[in-house]
Amino acid sequence: MDTSAAIPTPSTVFQAFAAYQRTEALRAAIDIGLFTAVGAGASTAQEIAARCGAAERGVRILADYLVVSGLLSKDRERYSLTPVAATFLDGASPACIASAIHFLASPFVMGNFARLTAAVRKGGAAIGDEHLAADHPMWVEFARSMAPLARFVAVLVANLLDASAGARWKVLDIAAGHGLFGITLAEQNPNAEIVALDWKNVLAVAEENARNAGVRDRFRTLPGSAFDVDYGSGYDLVLLTNILHHFDPAGCETLLRKVHAALKPGGRAVTVEMVPDASRVTPPDAAAFALVMLAGTPAGDAYTFAEYERMFRNAGFARSELHELVPSPQRAVISYR
Amino acid sequence: MDTSAAIPTPSTVFQAFAAYQRTEALRAAIDIGLFTAVGAGASTAQEIAARCGAAERGVRILADYLVVSGLLSKDRERYSLTPVAATFLDGASPACIASAIHFLASPFVMGNFARLTAAVRKGGAAIGDEHLAADHPMWVEFARSMAPLARFVAVLVANLLDASAGARWKVLDIAAGHGLFGITLAEQNPNAEIVALDWKNVLAVAEENARNAGVRDRFRTLPGSAFDVDYGSGYDLVLLTNILHHFDPAGCETLLRKVHAALKPGGRAVTVEMVPDASRVTPPDAAAFALVMLAGTPAGDAYTFAEYERMFRNAGFARSELHELVPSPQRAVISYR
Repeated sequence: MDTSAAIPTPSTVFQAFAAYQRTEALRAAIDIGLFTAVGAGASTAQEIAARCGAAERGVRILADYLVVSGLLSKDRERYSLTPVAATFLDGASPACIASAIHFLASPFVMGNFARLTAAVRKGGAAIGDEHLAADHPMWVEFARSMAPLARFVAVLVANLLDASAGARWKVLDIAAGHGLFGITLAEQNPNAEIVALDWKNVLAVAEENARNAGVRDRFRTLPGSAFDVDYGSGYDLVLLTNILHHFDPAGCETLLRKVHAALKPGGRAVTVEMVPDASRVTPPDAAAFALVMLAGTPAGDAYTFAEYERMFRNAGFARSELHELVPSPQRAVISYR
Repeated sequence: MDTSAAIPTPSTVFQAFAAYQRTEALRAAIDIGLFTAVGAGASTAQEIAARCGAAERGVRILADYLVVSGLLSKDRERYSLTPVAATFLDGASPACIASAIHFLASPFVMGNFARLTAAVRKGGAAIGDEHLAADHPMWVEFARSMAPLARFVAVLVANLLDASAGARWKVLDIAAGHGLFGITLAEQNPNAEIVALDWKNVLAVAEENARNAGVRDRFRTLPGSAFDVDYGSGYDLVLLTNILHHFDPAGCETLLRKVHAALKPGGRAVTVEMVPDASRVTPPDAAAFALVMLAGTPAGDAYTFAEYERMFRNAGFARSELHELVPSPQRAVISYR
């Protein structure tokens, strides 16, 4: 008689105990260039080790772990990239987002999680919000390492907005970071002019990206805090990408009233965020993101669409729409002045 | 037309970037007693927060994350334990293994993983093996926090060996730690006498466990290193639980020759280990364990059954058998003198 169905296995618990090992395995693989080596044809542990300057034994054990994690396949002694690794982790792929690990699992963010118990007890990060309110060097790291991931989402946003139709756009990109959301709109729409707002040290990265993309002549910068600086007015679009999750609803509404005032009549605010469903437990990546905000901000959150809708309404917007950005886990909220 | 099947989603990659957050969420939940509170009837974030002395907002975000991780269920605003959490994480469950996180995700083990890239390059941990060769305090932490998990596996081993049949057994438990593998045999077999070998400071924990189990009069201790101390002889069983993975095959064989000499004719060595299949990529928990050894030991590994069979044969054993220990991820290798 098979009684195994009646006994829960502790596998889910083991895997949660040891989940941090998956992050570190991915980091080690990216550090030594493993995915790029396999993508370029190295397939045995010996071949990969030779190309990466690592020990064969170390590569064999790491590569087997990556098979368990779904990032490599193994056929006898030969490893190959799974489709997801070939697309997102091979340095030769235009969609490679590997560098994002340098921010998403940086000492800064991991340090926040090392104090998670205190944040749960308090209901928010026990740290202040200095990292949001000053020229924190973390945001330069963010701008550099998250650029490829941002590019991936920015193309989906540009498609959603039908940028290539070429409408005359004046665009304000708030907390622009790497600048890639605005830059991608400018690339696809030759009639778009971008104003990028962020800290001065971060804007240096954005300017470099704008220059590389050949849109520097339509890319202006506005250094300072989104809460303090004068936005100007007459914008067709204001981009709010991964910024509102840092603040409580009152803080968001303060910002959104400024956005509303800066838009021309009929203008749109475009919010790109992790937006969980009303249940707050689906879809998984967006729902899980709330914990990053609990660990890392005093009062930030992954807001639902209903919550965004209310904040935009309170700030004077006429209506908001929710849009998927498949295959990204992010969603767009488009709010009309 | 649905083209989504053709585009790999980056979800596997995102989840690997952020996997460490799953470990920290589990730790925070265990720290505040969340699973025990839910098991005792607290179901809304407010009720759980009140019972755990935490903020409602912190509990709401943490609990939603645990739903995504498969450890809680959510029905409107009410949380409940999934079967796996009720069995293995509720402090009121006799099978609760929550304390294992204090070893499996301890600063010591996580520190090893923070240096994983160096271990991959070198083919083994860049640290020495001091932690294996001296009275390292880590092993006291191990003995205390891993005891409930060991108990869970020890019962499966006792069943496999048919301990309750009551055969007269003299048992040597090498690197006994908490002592629970030997203690559980002594509990189920009143004719079993146990000799537990480990460091002196660790054996204090094992003696306490033997006293609590009521088998202290059949539980002797043998302080020292498994490589140096005289085992005595005439053993029916020698237990090798989670010890061989620390060493290279030559080191294992050195130990196994001592074990062979200590067994009486017909005696058995019982190895309990993470034993991956020949492919080294299944089953997942056992296969993934090799990385823990790469990160934490100079030359340890998760050996396959064929590898164990060869080591035991080289040490003089007649034959070895592989046994499952379902629902544990571990397996037993029984080797006959």
